[in-house]
Amino acid sequence: MSKKLLMLLPSGAEEMEFVICVDVLRRCGVSVTIAGLGGKQITCSRDVVITADTTLNEASKGEFDAIALPGGLGGSKAMAESTQLGEVLKSFETNGKIIAAICAAPTVLLAHSIALGKSLTSYPSFKDNLSDKYRYIDDKRVVIDGNLITSRGPGTAFDFALKLAEILVGLDKVKQVSSGMLYSLN
Amino acid sequence: MSKKLLMLLPSGAEEMEFVICVDVLRRCGVSVTIAGLGGKQITCSRDVVITADTTLNEASKGEFDAIALPGGLGGSKAMAESTQLGEVLKSFETNGKIIAAICAAPTVLLAHSIALGKSLTSYPSFKDNLSDKYRYIDDKRVVIDGNLITSRGPGTAFDFALKLAEILVGLDKVKQVSSGMLYSLN
Repeated sequence: MSKKLLMLLPSGAEEMEFVICVDVLRRCGVSVTIAGLGGKQITCSRDVVITADTTLNEASKGEFDAIALPGGLGGSKAMAESTQLGEVLKSFETNGKIIAAICAAPTVLLAHSIALGKSLTSYPSFKDNLSDKYRYIDDKRVVIDGNLITSRGPGTAFDFALKLAEILVGLDKVKQVSSGMLYSLN
Repeated sequence: MSKKLLMLLPSGAEEMEFVICVDVLRRCGVSVTIAGLGGKQITCSRDVVITADTTLNEASKGEFDAIALPGGLGGSKAMAESTQLGEVLKSFETNGKIIAAICAAPTVLLAHSIALGKSLTSYPSFKDNLSDKYRYIDDKRVVIDGNLITSRGPGTAFDFALKLAEILVGLDKVKQVSSGMLYSLN
């Protein structure tokens, strides 16, 4: 059976980080459910309008192997303020499922006290916010610590998506998909 | 005044190539109009649903400095079959404006007899289709020949977008934006 990813889509999400993650994971055969936060018709950080498959409210009734949070300042603020997302993240953490966040989104983990003490990275400007509660790594494109996967920005989004895919479906599939995309694995 | 880009969004467009182009160009200060082909609510190649700003029908009444075509097999087939897009492309060519195409989209140029004889590249599998009418280049991520900019696939989409931006707004802005995205210029 396909692995299942819950992909968040809040208003103000960074659309490249969002779309690269969805597209790469779907190319890898992962079943991706796009869950809108506060609705289904979402305007992203650079005004690209994307329609979610469902809302977080509906999606949170389902079972998933992993959850992924895109960056974008506005999107991360909305995710940090969502009590419902906080509960979903706590449930993923309690059940040892994979939690992935890129760019500004690691600040969402801090806001909901998720994965405290673990190693992570983020968009560089959030280093100070995160360094108190996490072991901050700033010399890697993607950081993995147990079930936590974090990355830095649009320029590392392919690496982030491919590493998440590798954990879900294995390196052979990832090599095949990255080759088809003409992307050189870092 | 801002430079203006007409960005096509057909059904079956490769959503990473599409979104990277729109987002990067908007970050660079280019005014990007997303023109849906055959409607405004478009389902892309990996089922991401994006709403265009307008239709090609409406957008083609405006003035632009450049037009860009995303890849994706289904999207390129739709663009190749669109008489209206063919007329728009011919008008851009006649007026010496910039024409940019990535992945499968250079086959759209062939279908509408645009830029015949120029140097270009594409997704590797279209080399045979294109080699008769163009000077095919397969060892560069982005190929520029006069007003024609072409590139190869999702893995070269940042380079494609940044090169298009460089031509429209200059290298200083491109360096600033790529640094902000944590993307290393190739």
